[in-house]
Amino acid sequence: MVNQEPTGIVMLNLGGPRSLDEVEPFLRNLFLDREIIQLPVQERLGAFIAKRRAPKLRKLYEAIGGGSPLYDWTARQGQGMAERLDVLCPETAPHRFYLAFRYTDPTSEQALRRMAADGVRRAVAFAQYPQYSCTTTGSSLNELWRTARRLALAESFEWSVIDRWSAHPAFVRAMAAKVREGLARFDEAVRDDVVLLFSAHSLPRRVIDRGDPYLQEVAATVHDVMCSIGGDHEYALSFQADVGPVAWQGPSTESVIRALGAQGRRHVLIVGIIFTTDHLDTLSEIDMEFAEVAREAGVTDFRRAPAPNDDPVFLDALAEVVADHLHGERGCSRQFSLRCAGCTNAQCREILNPARPHRQPPLHRTEPVPGVGRQPALPGSR
Amino acid sequence: MVNQEPTGIVMLNLGGPRSLDEVEPFLRNLFLDREIIQLPVQERLGAFIAKRRAPKLRKLYEAIGGGSPLYDWTARQGQGMAERLDVLCPETAPHRFYLAFRYTDPTSEQALRRMAADGVRRAVAFAQYPQYSCTTTGSSLNELWRTARRLALAESFEWSVIDRWSAHPAFVRAMAAKVREGLARFDEAVRDDVVLLFSAHSLPRRVIDRGDPYLQEVAATVHDVMCSIGGDHEYALSFQADVGPVAWQGPSTESVIRALGAQGRRHVLIVGIIFTTDHLDTLSEIDMEFAEVAREAGVTDFRRAPAPNDDPVFLDALAEVVADHLHGERGCSRQFSLRCAGCTNAQCREILNPARPHRQPPLHRTEPVPGVGRQPALPGSR
Repeated sequence: MVNQEPTGIVMLNLGGPRSLDEVEPFLRNLFLDREIIQLPVQERLGAFIAKRRAPKLRKLYEAIGGGSPLYDWTARQGQGMAERLDVLCPETAPHRFYLAFRYTDPTSEQALRRMAADGVRRAVAFAQYPQYSCTTTGSSLNELWRTARRLALAESFEWSVIDRWSAHPAFVRAMAAKVREGLARFDEAVRDDVVLLFSAHSLPRRVIDRGDPYLQEVAATVHDVMCSIGGDHEYALSFQADVGPVAWQGPSTESVIRALGAQGRRHVLIVGIIFTTDHLDTLSEIDMEFAEVAREAGVTDFRRAPAPNDDPVFLDALAEVVADHLHGERGCSRQFSLRCAGCTNAQCREILNPARPHRQPPLHRTEPVPGVGRQPALPGSR
Repeated sequence: MVNQEPTGIVMLNLGGPRSLDEVEPFLRNLFLDREIIQLPVQERLGAFIAKRRAPKLRKLYEAIGGGSPLYDWTARQGQGMAERLDVLCPETAPHRFYLAFRYTDPTSEQALRRMAADGVRRAVAFAQYPQYSCTTTGSSLNELWRTARRLALAESFEWSVIDRWSAHPAFVRAMAAKVREGLARFDEAVRDDVVLLFSAHSLPRRVIDRGDPYLQEVAATVHDVMCSIGGDHEYALSFQADVGPVAWQGPSTESVIRALGAQGRRHVLIVGIIFTTDHLDTLSEIDMEFAEVAREAGVTDFRRAPAPNDDPVFLDALAEVVADHLHGERGCSRQFSLRCAGCTNAQCREILNPARPHRQPPLHRTEPVPGVGRQPALPGSR
């Protein structure tokens, strides 16, 4: 093999505190992210809210072993993915993975500095959120480009983006395998009666209303996974992590578990359909909080399909998604060039120094509409 | 062919006023449907609202030719479907179709009386809403069973149900063909820039929050249709017909059209992804109201993918859906036996005098949960 510049695969994720000391900084960074939350005097109010919420969150992390396993799982996934890519795509080998977390170390800055030190030129920003949302993938990408500019590394790498892979056949296959694994944990005599409850992180309704495609993509993954497993189970989709004062997309997972219990359903397999690794949402919210809700509601046989973590089938899927991207001609998905209807962020849908043709879609048309005086209203303003 | 009892295919739909005189009775029946709207003193208040709204709606129907073409299109679809079924399923021939509309003639009562007169024994209730919602398919089925009981025809027919076909390959193929037909209407030079806007009837958020599967099924159809056409277009999903004082699932189609215009998009193909025939929602709301919105917003090239109506490809699809059902072993979809989490209607999910095994799921468990005193909360009560 020719000794060439490594191809950098940047794995974008929210991150999670690896120790209890990191809980407050994690929260502070979250509450400073204006792409998710807009607060008055954000700097001070964000820090205040983070400080107030930290003790409760520290307790939750304490109960799952003192920190989030997200870093460890993602690093293992990166390792497995890079090894496979060297075989699948010898023409772009060697492949190196870099973690870039939005709210904890390693940050975008750390990733970019390492890439520069490693002599990376061709880079792929690979969102570890299979379903696209502006609040996750969008925020991570925008932060990555801002950081590259700040570090004067804007011209250092040629970028392309894997912005969504919610319906990639390899991902669907891997998730279907985890569902089958979960089903196998039920007694064979009751397996047919198991209700599959696909649970996804919720989004504020105002985000859905401005046209964020997340809901659609989650539903598409669920649909494809159900087709893949043969479809012979009842299933529902619900949304978790709906905390705080805003209105969230429903139905809430907790309410659905209670209702299934009330209807006399005894066997429920919950599937974290958007989570590629274990972290607080699976280990605490599902395995502790919802398990207790299920017990109270009479769902006596409540189990969770394992998260993909370092399952070789999932590592294969990660590598296949990237290989298809490297072998393809596109710098991003076709959908990436469509802004949300209610977009107000000029930075969105950018690819910095693109390796392949990409034109960032304009936020506002520049030429006037002939014969029309009044300003078109944005969604939510009705 | 053996001369045997005809198989009855009952095509369930909302119905629409065929003349201006039928507008007020149509509205009155709609506002009396407690499965959609719950009003105090429903009988009187429903009639009052219907009377008040009728003049405006009559004007809309006047503008599209004086009535809804829903009856004519559905009758043609039934004819084409029945002819095809006689070829596809000689063992259950002859097949006769019956229209059963929820809010206009021909009603469930008329359908059932005709079936009895024709000597039908085996009957299929075939929802003409491809995507399941309790507000459409659910309401139509419950009305059908109530009517059969009222007419003392509860034992006269052996029923099975086609409650959803949102992802049936033949339906997806037919819808994809209509999208391609719509795309072909654009100048070839701009065709790549066309945004596909899939528009579905909206639902009140409280219906979504109680676990109605409609949203998921609409997203699944959109996903499958996009895969079928090769996926090389930007697309969005939005919701229309969001009138009245309740909160509706967004984003609204009108707001998305305005926003696309504001972003400088000139070419939009709107696709009524849940509508199998033309009626007020396509001919008036899309072709008139939204076309005007598009013009104002600078979407200079706004077109609609034709509704399936009597397209032979769609008639093939209808026949295939029924043939697969008749050849299958199930009396309904697997999903039909899962109540919405927030279900409060004991009648839901029934199949009257089922031709194939069906156990209506209980609304409440009968035995108590061991060791748990308090009542499980239903969704929406948090």
